[in-house]
Amino acid sequence: MTVSEQPLSIIQAKQDQAKFDFMLKYYRNLIVDLVHNYKGGHGGGPNGMAAIGIALYKYAMKYSPKNPSYFNRDRFVLSNGHTCLFQYAFNHLVGYEHMTMEALKSYHSADLESYCPGHPEIEHPGIEVTTGPLGQGIANAVGLSIASKNLAATYNRDGFPVVDNTIFCMVGDACLQEGPGLEAISIAGSLRLDNLVVMYDNNQITCDGSVDITNTEDINAKFRACNWNVIEVMDGSMDIFGIVSALEEAKLSDKPTLINCHTVIGLSTPWENTAAVHGADIGAENVLKFKEAVGIPASETFYVPDEMYEYFSDIKVKGAEYEKNWNNLIAEYEKAYPELAAEFKMRVAGKLPTNWKSLIPSEFPASDTPSRKSGGLVLNPLAQHINSFIVGTADLSPSVNMTWPGKVDFQDPLKKTACGLNGNYGGRYVHFGIREHAMCAIANGIAAYNEGTFIPVTSTFFMFYLYGAPAVRMGALMNLKVIHVGTHDSIGTGEDGPTHQPIALANFYRALPNFLYFRPVDSAETAGAYETAIETEGVSALISESRQNLKQFPENSKRDAVKLGAYIFDDFKDLSAEKDLIIIGVGSEMIFAMEAASILRSKGVNVRVVSFPCQRLFEQQSLEYRHSLLMRNKLVPTVVIEAYAPNGWERYSTAGINMQTFGKSLPGKVCYDFFGFNSEKIADKVGKYLQDVKANPSLAYEFQDLN
Amino acid sequence: MTVSEQPLSIIQAKQDQAKFDFMLKYYRNLIVDLVHNYKGGHGGGPNGMAAIGIALYKYAMKYSPKNPSYFNRDRFVLSNGHTCLFQYAFNHLVGYEHMTMEALKSYHSADLESYCPGHPEIEHPGIEVTTGPLGQGIANAVGLSIASKNLAATYNRDGFPVVDNTIFCMVGDACLQEGPGLEAISIAGSLRLDNLVVMYDNNQITCDGSVDITNTEDINAKFRACNWNVIEVMDGSMDIFGIVSALEEAKLSDKPTLINCHTVIGLSTPWENTAAVHGADIGAENVLKFKEAVGIPASETFYVPDEMYEYFSDIKVKGAEYEKNWNNLIAEYEKAYPELAAEFKMRVAGKLPTNWKSLIPSEFPASDTPSRKSGGLVLNPLAQHINSFIVGTADLSPSVNMTWPGKVDFQDPLKKTACGLNGNYGGRYVHFGIREHAMCAIANGIAAYNEGTFIPVTSTFFMFYLYGAPAVRMGALMNLKVIHVGTHDSIGTGEDGPTHQPIALANFYRALPNFLYFRPVDSAETAGAYETAIETEGVSALISESRQNLKQFPENSKRDAVKLGAYIFDDFKDLSAEKDLIIIGVGSEMIFAMEAASILRSKGVNVRVVSFPCQRLFEQQSLEYRHSLLMRNKLVPTVVIEAYAPNGWERYSTAGINMQTFGKSLPGKVCYDFFGFNSEKIADKVGKYLQDVKANPSLAYEFQDLN
Repeated sequence: MTVSEQPLSIIQAKQDQAKFDFMLKYYRNLIVDLVHNYKGGHGGGPNGMAAIGIALYKYAMKYSPKNPSYFNRDRFVLSNGHTCLFQYAFNHLVGYEHMTMEALKSYHSADLESYCPGHPEIEHPGIEVTTGPLGQGIANAVGLSIASKNLAATYNRDGFPVVDNTIFCMVGDACLQEGPGLEAISIAGSLRLDNLVVMYDNNQITCDGSVDITNTEDINAKFRACNWNVIEVMDGSMDIFGIVSALEEAKLSDKPTLINCHTVIGLSTPWENTAAVHGADIGAENVLKFKEAVGIPASETFYVPDEMYEYFSDIKVKGAEYEKNWNNLIAEYEKAYPELAAEFKMRVAGKLPTNWKSLIPSEFPASDTPSRKSGGLVLNPLAQHINSFIVGTADLSPSVNMTWPGKVDFQDPLKKTACGLNGNYGGRYVHFGIREHAMCAIANGIAAYNEGTFIPVTSTFFMFYLYGAPAVRMGALMNLKVIHVGTHDSIGTGEDGPTHQPIALANFYRALPNFLYFRPVDSAETAGAYETAIETEGVSALISESRQNLKQFPENSKRDAVKLGAYIFDDFKDLSAEKDLIIIGVGSEMIFAMEAASILRSKGVNVRVVSFPCQRLFEQQSLEYRHSLLMRNKLVPTVVIEAYAPNGWERYSTAGINMQTFGKSLPGKVCYDFFGFNSEKIADKVGKYLQDVKANPSLAYEFQDLN
Repeated sequence: MTVSEQPLSIIQAKQDQAKFDFMLKYYRNLIVDLVHNYKGGHGGGPNGMAAIGIALYKYAMKYSPKNPSYFNRDRFVLSNGHTCLFQYAFNHLVGYEHMTMEALKSYHSADLESYCPGHPEIEHPGIEVTTGPLGQGIANAVGLSIASKNLAATYNRDGFPVVDNTIFCMVGDACLQEGPGLEAISIAGSLRLDNLVVMYDNNQITCDGSVDITNTEDINAKFRACNWNVIEVMDGSMDIFGIVSALEEAKLSDKPTLINCHTVIGLSTPWENTAAVHGADIGAENVLKFKEAVGIPASETFYVPDEMYEYFSDIKVKGAEYEKNWNNLIAEYEKAYPELAAEFKMRVAGKLPTNWKSLIPSEFPASDTPSRKSGGLVLNPLAQHINSFIVGTADLSPSVNMTWPGKVDFQDPLKKTACGLNGNYGGRYVHFGIREHAMCAIANGIAAYNEGTFIPVTSTFFMFYLYGAPAVRMGALMNLKVIHVGTHDSIGTGEDGPTHQPIALANFYRALPNFLYFRPVDSAETAGAYETAIETEGVSALISESRQNLKQFPENSKRDAVKLGAYIFDDFKDLSAEKDLIIIGVGSEMIFAMEAASILRSKGVNVRVVSFPCQRLFEQQSLEYRHSLLMRNKLVPTVVIEAYAPNGWERYSTAGINMQTFGKSLPGKVCYDFFGFNSEKIADKVGKYLQDVKANPSLAYEFQDLN
């Protein structure tokens, strides 16, 4: 590069070189004091990452501290979330208003309103995603990168780069060991996400000691094998200029880039380069030794020199300029491309077209339908017509039925696949590969790009949402609207056997806060489940669908009632007579509930059938509604029929036909029968139970497992 | 290699070359017929893998069909478990007695006793581990490899290679995309597991089409970067001799080996090399076209020519010889090393020293102790003195307290780590790295080496057993005795915040069949939990431990009562008066139960406190015991206090102080208080609840969330 061609960041960094040592030592001083203030936390990493931070926050990143949610900002993900002080301290220095010195001092404190919790939290300004569980953030960053590339491909026009941001992600050694991180790296290279830059804080220290205890791989070669661009910075603790140069080089790459920064953890402290400095207070004495070593007076505690604030003072100004220029660009864009701009602004505002619900069929075929097919009937028109939906699967396209006419894959447009399945970055169908965990974490990243701009939809067999569970949970914790579609639920999935038959998984998802787990009984309820998932703010959702054909209940099932969580499916035939029994039917097991009810009615039992697609939504209903439906306050015998572990149904029922063991490899119907899911057998057991309860009412005081 | 130096397998394979095409086509014919017989299943893979199978089953592997559990056999893991017909068909051909042609025809059938379920199951002869969920098997294979190397390092002596088996693992494209597979590959290279050979059925086809849709990485370079030896076989569908040669070359390597076999899925069928042939019946017409293409009469259905049985007939003979020679070797070994041999035979028999329980302290310090420290006090003496225990952590050695005096790491003895932490293959402490999922799957593999030979113990923060959950579940499904130790449970873990505070995870583990989830209240119960986990056959277990100090209850807690699941911790002070209330205390929240009980007693409430370390064990107790403890049949108001989601406690209690949301980053005590875990507040709420129940007894009919 000649001087005239050099990017501004390099020119500026070159001019600033004389200031670097000063900035680095005072940044480290602040970190050391803050960690000692709390007497713990993670200070070694932020200390070692100081130069990387200056390169990013001062020179490389495009963002606006005055408006942390400026749409076209670069995104920064701290995948090694335990080093959050790194980010908090920089957010203070560059002028995020909330991040005062007092706020910094609340790191790990008992302050209920602290902006400095133990890991970064998406609710706070300047934080893109909540991180902590390792390997998640880098996969979120891949999602942010996909979101950005998809928006750019969809809305950018010649002279109108309305979306052109870069995704920066910081990782430590751990994120490169964790499975979801490795999956995300692999797919990022395959999709050639050239707007993604991963900064590797390569300090070779983890809790147990040096990384070579457990990892001796050639990380550069591994990334290159995964189609990444790799740049190495040998003195990553001090060489700010080298890092700035690497960041500029990364922007020129047509691949995602790893910048492998060799750093020293806890630099200049007596514990530098040891595991001891990773996650502990270094003690008052060592704090003093650090200050002495770098030449800072002992009195300079929580101290940011004026020169340092001055050094970072241009960031706010530049940020405001980015915003202004972008707003001007959008104003011009509206004139040049009014329709496109209208859609773009709707996306920026996080809104769906007002008519979205009308795209969903109002009627469904009355013939038996697997709910995995119903799901496609509901979702695919939305995905076809609304650019907000980005749909993907962990290699189960033929099984999950989530493709639509004219569907285009999100794909590297230069890639020609052997099977002829090609696409471009404007495509909205993602082949995630057999990477369930990364799929769910990437979906979180897509959703986190900007609230409501995307509604990501993932899919695989329900059982494999156990692989993705740590990411699904993070989505719920972040209040991200992500819809997961788990097909082949319950033992009805059949021959694949116990490895593929979920028994205990729904119990987790039903217990998970901010989360809606739906098990619809037919197409109408499936539509209700999707609608509710789309309409409900602040939650992630999983819609559980059957592999096998399900009877449709047009007379009984109520699409709009799904949002109540549970409702009357088939009521007592005699409302004035004694209410003998309530049967709760769930998902693909509703058929047994309805058939058993019919048999019991023929024997004179007055029975109501309740459909129960979503426990959490039912919990949100009024006590009056809940009592009117289940009459728990009157202890009407209530039997739940579901081929999952019963745990949790005890809240709603007095007895259950459930699974007590793992499943079995048998054809679906045979498998059901083997485990007692047979309407005749169920009617017999429930009939006997009613007699027993009549003879001994205290039986209804506690949940009875009837099979 | 000169001819005289050539291994027997190569010499034999060379002699047999003329037979190969015949064997391959009749093997494929059998597969095609079996898949068509079921009208589905997975035939494309087994078809493509035919040559790999012949190389393995006929030439490379050391095993004995007459005695599938012959101790020093090579282990074969089919990580791509959906291709199970591959293994079933070879088990038939080589003479496993149970695997008759009729048994083969029961593939995917309604036969309740079938030896050919949809995925391989460990219960069946000739199957080492249950596979299906992708990426698990390869990690199990790493565990088998660790087990073998550890036994060899511990018991082999000059001239006495009592353990010298090889671990072969078959993978498809998927296992090399899945996170747990990638984690396992990384650690296998780092540990230099040279007894591990992974055969890659590289057909470049998955359900969605060609692999390059989602994965364009250079797999050979990636494995080499991970310190693997890589051998490529370009015609892996036909070149048996090439595969046999590669297998011999692998044995000479001082690293784990990947044999990258380029294959064609569904070879010679009209659908060869397409996704269509991956997981479906190819149809009657295509079956005929296949037979025509390879030159087999249409009438030869389920047909194994006599020449083929003849060809494989030496396997049984060789297997019997392996066994005989090994038995002779052991007899000599007993004479040369009587003490070592005695221990070895005990290990082979899957037994612990009879005095194992005496190694656990009978008393524990009365001062406040975190249960993660209690766990160490219990486990470490066992691990120190009994070679069966192999203990590891996902990089949390300083946190989980599971090291012991003189502990030696399981490690490549040639490796010198930067931090000076070295070891050898006789070591029994495994640094798994930040790879929770692989850790749990590897532990399954270690346990599966031979029943009872090892008791693997894993550890990380409890929250991160969500990462490992798919593997933990597989351990339970396989009835493997693996003990998982999850520290930092509940919101009491404090400042790390909601990302690290488990809310819904215990609900999953409590619902999981064949699994014991323990939450002990103090050191005595922690000892009881370990003892019960070790003594109980056919289950995996997770012991949940606190980060923070816990009060010890020497007067109340009963180590031996843990096996009952729940027991009286502090009884009604007046047994003849009315029983007002039962409080269930769990784990680190017992302190609130005891303190609240004390406050309520001072107000005249007659209250019993129950400790409830394990729900599943309690379910196994007699109705009489259960009723005597909880008196559910009398509907005594019962309040559970646990800082997890309540789901499932409704079975045992009428109300609860539980978590309804995610946690928060606050110091542990502050966090507890913030969410209502404060003995005064609890006593108030429970007191109010009792008044309400008195006024309206039907309140006790249904579970009340009190906070």
